[in-house]
Amino acid sequence: MSQLNVSMIVIGDEILNGRTTDLNGSFLSKYLFKKGLTFKSLRFIHDDIEEINKALTDSMNESDIVITSGGIGPTQDDKTKTVLANFFGKKIIERDDVADIVTKNYIRFGRTWQPGHNYYHFFPEDFTPVSNPKGLAPGIAYYEESHKKLIMAGPGVPREFSEMVDQEFFPLIKKYYSERLGEFHQTVIRTTGVSEEKIFFELCPTLWKDLERYGKVSSLPHTIGIDIVVSYTADSKEHQNKSDDIKKLIDSTPLGPHVWQYGNTPVNELVFAKARELKNTFSFAESCTGGLTSSKITDLSGSSEVFMGGVVSYANEAKENFLDVRSETLKKFGAVSIETAEEMARGAREKFKTDFAVSLTGIAGPSGGTAEKPEGTLVIGYAGKNFSGARKFLFPGDRIRRKERFSDMALLILLHLMEGKINQ
Amino acid sequence: MSQLNVSMIVIGDEILNGRTTDLNGSFLSKYLFKKGLTFKSLRFIHDDIEEINKALTDSMNESDIVITSGGIGPTQDDKTKTVLANFFGKKIIERDDVADIVTKNYIRFGRTWQPGHNYYHFFPEDFTPVSNPKGLAPGIAYYEESHKKLIMAGPGVPREFSEMVDQEFFPLIKKYYSERLGEFHQTVIRTTGVSEEKIFFELCPTLWKDLERYGKVSSLPHTIGIDIVVSYTADSKEHQNKSDDIKKLIDSTPLGPHVWQYGNTPVNELVFAKARELKNTFSFAESCTGGLTSSKITDLSGSSEVFMGGVVSYANEAKENFLDVRSETLKKFGAVSIETAEEMARGAREKFKTDFAVSLTGIAGPSGGTAEKPEGTLVIGYAGKNFSGARKFLFPGDRIRRKERFSDMALLILLHLMEGKINQ
Repeated sequence: MSQLNVSMIVIGDEILNGRTTDLNGSFLSKYLFKKGLTFKSLRFIHDDIEEINKALTDSMNESDIVITSGGIGPTQDDKTKTVLANFFGKKIIERDDVADIVTKNYIRFGRTWQPGHNYYHFFPEDFTPVSNPKGLAPGIAYYEESHKKLIMAGPGVPREFSEMVDQEFFPLIKKYYSERLGEFHQTVIRTTGVSEEKIFFELCPTLWKDLERYGKVSSLPHTIGIDIVVSYTADSKEHQNKSDDIKKLIDSTPLGPHVWQYGNTPVNELVFAKARELKNTFSFAESCTGGLTSSKITDLSGSSEVFMGGVVSYANEAKENFLDVRSETLKKFGAVSIETAEEMARGAREKFKTDFAVSLTGIAGPSGGTAEKPEGTLVIGYAGKNFSGARKFLFPGDRIRRKERFSDMALLILLHLMEGKINQ
Repeated sequence: MSQLNVSMIVIGDEILNGRTTDLNGSFLSKYLFKKGLTFKSLRFIHDDIEEINKALTDSMNESDIVITSGGIGPTQDDKTKTVLANFFGKKIIERDDVADIVTKNYIRFGRTWQPGHNYYHFFPEDFTPVSNPKGLAPGIAYYEESHKKLIMAGPGVPREFSEMVDQEFFPLIKKYYSERLGEFHQTVIRTTGVSEEKIFFELCPTLWKDLERYGKVSSLPHTIGIDIVVSYTADSKEHQNKSDDIKKLIDSTPLGPHVWQYGNTPVNELVFAKARELKNTFSFAESCTGGLTSSKITDLSGSSEVFMGGVVSYANEAKENFLDVRSETLKKFGAVSIETAEEMARGAREKFKTDFAVSLTGIAGPSGGTAEKPEGTLVIGYAGKNFSGARKFLFPGDRIRRKERFSDMALLILLHLMEGKINQ
């Protein structure tokens, strides 16, 4: 099974002009990695015939598969279809099969397409039209038999592009390269509280080598810790076995207690799923994160089932008035302290009448740090039925990154609360 | 003055493997646009000698200036320096001037560099070492006299790269291409409440043409409206005149009342600056945005001066208990209503004892919409001394984008409150 290379060309002025940030390239890089394909190169070019031709030639030299995004819309700027037709010496003709696809795309949006509306149904001969599950313009595919190259053109709109890649392009890749495409799997080990150096030099000096027996190993720093990813091709039974073996291996090392997930689910989704499963409710009291933890939960549709609300108690007065934190506690221990965090969590739990509450108080920086409580200090308080407590952390990064890390850590603590891993 | 083209090559596996999202390419695209340079092409390639050579050749054919990021660190993976030296037929030699720069870079971080530590001071002859204001590895620059091409290599770490581009690379571009580089300026007109179609087809059909007399016009959709950008080269006096003329022009059209800023400052920064200037305090009551508005304000260091806190009143009970919204109001008008929003804002203002308070209640989707209150409905309530009110909006997008739009709109309402534009 030889490596299958993919090159991508992003066509259009918007990204090179700084008007929008690329989403399609970064989507494809993650997608291809998960599918076990090699992302060979990524080019951003202007909507210019000569540039598109050159990028196509170069990309086809490098890779088996070329994917473009952008320029398949209905206006005169949209040159991709014409350039591709010319590139492969094909005529553009009026095609009924394409008109059918376009008609269906329109119906999906409650609209009616008529041939006069645009030129979607003028399409290169021998090319394959591709359904656009989230948009109107059909995608384009062409398999060049003699060199075994597959060229596919998708839309520039990110939600249309990602859907088309997953629903339409990947099946085409499977069709033409099945013998070179294994079933690709990953076992993801997500840890917290230990640095890369600590894991691979101190705790488990042979771990990297041991894991390499199962596949390609990579170590990726994440907001609240290090993710270790083992990637391999295997059928699902073999994958299950490998995954089980890796878990056993990790559990036998000092890294075991630091693993918080075997898998790749964002922590806000884990919290939401667990709360739903157990019919638990929760609330937050946030100081240094200013509402970000609550916001992450409410990114998920349906979160009102389990999340009752939160208080952003930025000022000390708000901590007293909304959360019943005692002014003596604030005076004696300060706003960033185990004692204050615990009272904040208890106050939120009582006021919101939830099963659990988690609080955050800390110093996001870049100012406000002291020798005793340096920038990056975070105290997370928690409260459940008949118990409460708090834990102290120290996180690197700038203000924005720390807010990310702080809030993810609070969500992990909440997950552990619901799982009964923290019960005093 | 002929157009100055820049090509960029991002070297390294991390982005093509989906491990990190590109920041340097998107930084450079925005930066070059602001400086009036043309971003000709952007390539992502692997850390591979052959690929780097090919990308260099192609980029130099297309552009006057080539900027690379990545591969200038101390390890064996870091091939950029060697490849560049070979590319231009230069030897790598031990250089005292480079050692000086490296020594200074280390001192800046409170560390001491010694020649044994790494090979930073082995550097191509005739190349210019570039100071790294935020890191250790020096950047690389080479001006190829005969073809008037400037090649510059910066680090892959985004905060190091962006700083080096601004502090070091841009001055070099000025030095070698001064005659082709004008002073570049923009007048940015930020609007809200009107669509692109409405502006350019209905309200001001001649506006685009009228603005084109001053420079290049572009229209960029933003979270809460359309930004119209006019870009031109001019000295600062000329810029001032153009800018004044553009403002006068806009004010004479029906678009005038829809402009909320001539400039490019994010709305959270405008709010913070205005509150500081006027010594105003404020608070939020958030439902559908789940804390995002508060979080945006607390992204800014020092915001505790003006921001007292917020309540994320996701459940109706929280609206009653924390914000004194009357249960009759909720029953009669519903959670998403002018009446509830107004009571939420008044409750927040009283409870947090702030000069102003703004509330948000709405339907972010993808479910919960009705015929009367469709998905995307947002009601913003506001309260000041002796007055309160609420306004209704409808925003497109998915859940995440709507949260972005909702919260930015709430910040704009708060800005207008402090400016006295809303006073009843």
